[in-house]
Amino acid sequence: MPIETKYVEKIWPHAEIVADLAALRQNRPLTHCLTNSVARNFIANVLLAIGASPAMVSAESEVVEFAAVARSVLINLGSVTEAGAAAMLKSAAAAQAVGTPWVLDPAAIGGLRFRTGLAHDLLRYRPSIIKGNASEILTLAGGDGGGKGADSTIDTSAAVVPARALARQSGAVVVLTGATDYVTDGATVIAVPGGHPIMAAVTGTGCALGGVIAAFLGALGDPLRAATAGSAIFADAGARAARFAPGPGSFAVGFIDLLYRIGRDDAGPV
Amino acid sequence: MPIETKYVEKIWPHAEIVADLAALRQNRPLTHCLTNSVARNFIANVLLAIGASPAMVSAESEVVEFAAVARSVLINLGSVTEAGAAAMLKSAAAAQAVGTPWVLDPAAIGGLRFRTGLAHDLLRYRPSIIKGNASEILTLAGGDGGGKGADSTIDTSAAVVPARALARQSGAVVVLTGATDYVTDGATVIAVPGGHPIMAAVTGTGCALGGVIAAFLGALGDPLRAATAGSAIFADAGARAARFAPGPGSFAVGFIDLLYRIGRDDAGPV
Amino acid sequence: MPIETKYVEKIWPHAEIVADLAALRQNRPLTHCLTNSVARNFIANVLLAIGASPAMVSAESEVVEFAAVARSVLINLGSVTEAGAAAMLKSAAAAQAVGTPWVLDPAAIGGLRFRTGLAHDLLRYRPSIIKGNASEILTLAGGDGGGKGADSTIDTSAAVVPARALARQSGAVVVLTGATDYVTDGATVIAVPGGHPIMAAVTGTGCALGGVIAAFLGALGDPLRAATAGSAIFADAGARAARFAPGPGSFAVGFIDLLYRIGRDDAGPV
Repeated sequence: MPIETKYVEKIWPHAEIVADLAALRQNRPLTHCLTNSVARNFIANVLLAIGASPAMVSAESEVVEFAAVARSVLINLGSVTEAGAAAMLKSAAAAQAVGTPWVLDPAAIGGLRFRTGLAHDLLRYRPSIIKGNASEILTLAGGDGGGKGADSTIDTSAAVVPARALARQSGAVVVLTGATDYVTDGATVIAVPGGHPIMAAVTGTGCALGGVIAAFLGALGDPLRAATAGSAIFADAGARAARFAPGPGSFAVGFIDLLYRIGRDDAGPV
Repeated sequence: MPIETKYVEKIWPHAEIVADLAALRQNRPLTHCLTNSVARNFIANVLLAIGASPAMVSAESEVVEFAAVARSVLINLGSVTEAGAAAMLKSAAAAQAVGTPWVLDPAAIGGLRFRTGLAHDLLRYRPSIIKGNASEILTLAGGDGGGKGADSTIDTSAAVVPARALARQSGAVVVLTGATDYVTDGATVIAVPGGHPIMAAVTGTGCALGGVIAAFLGALGDPLRAATAGSAIFADAGARAARFAPGPGSFAVGFIDLLYRIGRDDAGPV
Repeated sequence: MPIETKYVEKIWPHAEIVADLAALRQNRPLTHCLTNSVARNFIANVLLAIGASPAMVSAESEVVEFAAVARSVLINLGSVTEAGAAAMLKSAAAAQAVGTPWVLDPAAIGGLRFRTGLAHDLLRYRPSIIKGNASEILTLAGGDGGGKGADSTIDTSAAVVPARALARQSGAVVVLTGATDYVTDGATVIAVPGGHPIMAAVTGTGCALGGVIAAFLGALGDPLRAATAGSAIFADAGARAARFAPGPGSFAVGFIDLLYRIGRDDAGPV
């Protein structure tokens, strides 16, 4: 079966995405992030900038209650600990039970057995969206991901077919990240170009993309649309912010500013 | 009984606050922060900028020793874990036992039972200052706070009476945060206007205010004066930094710069 | 025996250090950081900026596997927890067993018994480099460090002799930090001037220096050369970035930018 790929050619202003962003800001979705300690601050600031309401509730004693209050949940395995893993499993089970949609970011699985097993265990609770680089997606799809820390060693386009297979197996929309991101529900593949290489020089940008997608999921409900809107706005803001940044320190600051300002005034985005 | 409210109308240069800031810088109080992993880095940088000496000692095995060395302790419940809660209880007990004054920031209590119970347990160790938004203060005062994550859903001015009641019940000075902050020891109410809405778009600003108040408490001793000075300088720096910031990324950077420079040279604040 | 001290007088462009930085960027060493939650984000961004590949794998279940994959390991005791300490001991043992060189940063030991004991336990696994301020180095060398949180209360130059002794006892290269850093293998002492006082107003700069040294260790292998290159580039970048920074917020941003740009184009460093 040939893969039909749609390209989001002109990200901004793109009528559907503009509307999705407006809906997110109106909705201000409470987005529960169970995520790593490296990126937690950056993710929270990215979500606040775009207009969501992040919450980083972490205690195993609280995640079940909070899964029912949140509009969506992000579970990110970067620098996961044993205590964190226990909370993640409870959170995913509770989210599934109460119908709160959730996003799985299987950060750096492949080489490390503990988190690879955890990712497979979490899959049973049916995430609505899975976001990962080629190594991570190949690992979840049953192949050898060849992961090296958080960086993929596999070419992204080579992982589009496994990404579609994973979407079909899991029932989740899969976001395969790379120089171009690919969003697929197993049938359609949507290519989202954009972004900038300097984004890889700021820790937690990939994690923050997972957060933004989770926020759109909470606001919009539809996983394919949420994943596309999140990826497209993130990539576009990254490309724009990179133009003015002499290095990754300035880039991170300008990226947050830009996510805050994009679409906020009548003159259009910055 | 009518509430007498004093307004801090002109925050800077305000002779008492200028003197309090100079005392803090001279004193460089060792401020022990038991606080959430989202805001820990920002709080430390805010405290360094203003001139305090922050320490984020976290192990249950170390907090008792450290309560005796620190000049003050901040206990903040944001994203608290079970291990963190155990350390907090030991720290508060030790602080009370050795006479180190401490500040309670009951972040996001109300909806979540674990941390709400923890906050009530901590109250027994007699904090010198309690800082919270309307939801959090109402919850501690015995009402229904209606909390939604870290954001209050209750109007601030409606919580001034419960804040006074809480101050009387607990013996602590209460700082009720909002567009205007109110500081009360149960008798006097001091209104601290200022700040800027963009502060809510930077994660951890509320937490950092708790840290600044704890640092002033360590430097000055007097809870009412420490809470007022901390709130006033924080609000003033926030309003100033917001003038030059195109978004929350730049704001956070400029806010740290401004806290560092305020009052440091003869020309006065930036 | 008189101490022969060599000074790195002109840090940049210094042929050996330029070559070492180029080697690091070519090598992009996977640098495993077991480090405190306050500085984790900043360390990761510093390492990405300079050209290394940081990984913050934290679970006790994963650190043994990862010690074999990483090119070097950093173990930093700042805000260590009981769970973190267990992971550190396993990581150091595994690193020694498989021959992955590692760096010990005994942050804030001296006053606190738990981490002081932990640092001594870790020494048994033979770090290649130990980096600390005068208080920390004196404590490890068997003296009274008089530590107060993360800040040393002892003059740096007074600790050069104990630092040499510690290097001989432990077999590690010792980096003694202060206004001037001293790097010693027990025989030679290399003085690295530079840096800027504003660096002490940004939380985690000392921790990030440990990360940079670990990255050079992974790339170069030779501990004396790695410690010297890391300290020299860090100090030089700090001094340069301070020129343009009105405060510590801007400094941190510009420092990251500068580490990213230094030596990247033909025109030389920024």
